Amino acid sequence: MAGLHFVGISGSLRRQSTNTGLLRAAQKALPEGATMEIVDLSDIPFFNSDNPDKPASVQRVFAQLAKADALVFACPEYNYSIAPALKNIIDWASREPNNALLAGKAAAIVGAGGGMGTSRAQYHLRQVCVYIDVHPLNKPEFFANAFAGGFDANGDLTDPQLQKMLADQMAALARWATQLKA
Amino acid sequence: MAGLHFVGISGSLRRQSTNTGLLRAAQKALPEGATMEIVDLSDIPFFNSDNPDKPASVQRVFAQLAKADALVFACPEYNYSIAPALKNIIDWASREPNNALLAGKAAAIVGAGGGMGTSRAQYHLRQVCVYIDVHPLNKPEFFANAFAGGFDANGDLTDPQLQKMLADQMAALARWATQLKA
Amino acid sequence: MAGLHFVGISGSLRRQSTNTGLLRAAQKALPEGATMEIVDLSDIPFFNSDNPDKPASVQRVFAQLAKADALVFACPEYNYSIAPALKNIIDWASREPNNALLAGKAAAIVGAGGGMGTSRAQYHLRQVCVYIDVHPLNKPEFFANAFAGGFDANGDLTDPQLQKMLADQMAALARWATQLKA
Amino acid sequence: MAGLHFVGISGSLRRQSTNTGLLRAAQKALPEGATMEIVDLSDIPFFNSDNPDKPASVQRVFAQLAKADALVFACPEYNYSIAPALKNIIDWASREPNNALLAGKAAAIVGAGGGMGTSRAQYHLRQVCVYIDVHPLNKPEFFANAFAGGFDANGDLTDPQLQKMLADQMAALARWATQLKA
Repeated sequence: MAGLHFVGISGSLRRQSTNTGLLRAAQKALPEGATMEIVDLSDIPFFNSDNPDKPASVQRVFAQLAKADALVFACPEYNYSIAPALKNIIDWASREPNNALLAGKAAAIVGAGGGMGTSRAQYHLRQVCVYIDVHPLNKPEFFANAFAGGFDANGDLTDPQLQKMLADQMAALARWATQLKA
Repeated sequence: MAGLHFVGISGSLRRQSTNTGLLRAAQKALPEGATMEIVDLSDIPFFNSDNPDKPASVQRVFAQLAKADALVFACPEYNYSIAPALKNIIDWASREPNNALLAGKAAAIVGAGGGMGTSRAQYHLRQVCVYIDVHPLNKPEFFANAFAGGFDANGDLTDPQLQKMLADQMAALARWATQLKA
Repeated sequence: MAGLHFVGISGSLRRQSTNTGLLRAAQKALPEGATMEIVDLSDIPFFNSDNPDKPASVQRVFAQLAKADALVFACPEYNYSIAPALKNIIDWASREPNNALLAGKAAAIVGAGGGMGTSRAQYHLRQVCVYIDVHPLNKPEFFANAFAGGFDANGDLTDPQLQKMLADQMAALARWATQLKA
Repeated sequence: MAGLHFVGISGSLRRQSTNTGLLRAAQKALPEGATMEIVDLSDIPFFNSDNPDKPASVQRVFAQLAKADALVFACPEYNYSIAPALKNIIDWASREPNNALLAGKAAAIVGAGGGMGTSRAQYHLRQVCVYIDVHPLNKPEFFANAFAGGFDANGDLTDPQLQKMLADQMAALARWATQLKA
């Protein structure tokens, strides 16, 4: 698994988002030999095929996605479905020729929210993955109830059990990405 | 059904969108006594609870939604799910106190896309409607295959059969909205 | 709301099912003037259009459904979707001429399961309701974590808070059914 | 890919089912070195954990599933979701220790129905696959509009274009199964 590189994408634009916090926690829970960076979506405009030119912000994220061996989606749940910022960067990325930024890549999905841990949004995201040809891990899934604590005021994960679950998921992602690249 | 007012929301930002074209066609296919206006989402920013203040664009749409007896969603399908611009205005609107802009309202869902007529996105939108307490029509559903023709270069609907189906759906929406307001 | 009659359908065939227990609890939590009976699915065969003749068991349930002003689905979650016994009686019932057993009826959905309270199955059931033209309540939804207690060995609901939530849902169903019959 | 063995499971119990016909067509469209058998679900009872003993019919299907390198699901759509007979055998199989009949296996999903080719049921089946840890192909998907012809009175596939698409899918399944077994 030497040299695996993960790219994390969070659907929340909030500075103290627990979902983005999960990505920072994942960076600290990577298996040996893996690296991970987190993209910034704060300046990505809505995709509109009337204006298909990629602004610098989109080009920056695309350069990061191009290097990804696997993706880590932090998937908030807004109104029982996917956050627009997450869906929007996927829609942008899916327009690249030959789906080169996404096709065939392994992914993990994490989420922090209410009692169901953003599961309703995560299953919508899994349906999206069919079309963009990304392969999310079946197991383990990751659902955090942020209303029950486990995060600090910055959105950073403090709960040791969830940290352990996240480490398990990142290890599973490394194995899955390695298998899919074989 | 005198005085029913519908508000149309299209998830596509394209000038020549067939989905927005369906809303214009719906305006011409209303039952007697009903009126309909279409909101403009082109200047709505991503919702971010760090910046909850409503810009003028959001206030403009909210004023339109406040007057709606029923909603007409034009729901494109991007990557097997909802277009971010549509989801985003719903997320904004859902934050109003007591869910006053949406709660209990009747809705119709239409979509123009490939062979499945945006159905995959429409079922995701229906799940969203559970949380925002909107009641979409069960029947008739409306799925247009825009790749098979039926629209002109401006995105306007030209197919008489689809126009008839749209008129049927608008009539059903008027009955449903009347029933729900009773 | 005088004279409203509810019919409960449980997807579990187990004698001590907590889902069927929820239906018994609902019978004790009805608003004044409402009545409720529970159908027995233990002898319903798989629907097969090669053999469309209705056996006595199916005729028995159909007679019960015909009298229903509203439906109460107890929806277990098996492998993240609907239990076959529940889906099967819906498939049988949907074949009646003019969808007479189901069309336009109000429904409530309840479920007892793991931490997500059968929510994944419930959203699939809601999609089914679109086609069969049944109108489930948007709110309140009902999700019971049976692994956390609250039920006795017979599957009967003992938790007062869940009993209260069930009473609230039955009251909401009575209002919704009354509105839809208007 | 030498020696790959596929097992086909059809959710329809009809003798002249087009969905079961797709499985027979798949048997004739296998890549070199692959074999495929079709299970018979006509005598499988509803799963009920009160009676967990496996009857002979269930044992027969389990013996077939145990030999499968990959699964081919023929997924009808009944009322916008999965056919009970298909869901039921999955529920039975998922109860085996360590999920040994299913875990980690590759799968393809095909369906014949109306204009949407059973897609609504197929996305529900994909959600089921998350829990049972089966990996359906992302691409190609397979949707047949049986109402438009392409099948004979026995349910056998006669349309050359659909036969070619099926052969392409079986070849993709062989590659995917090989990759997942690596």
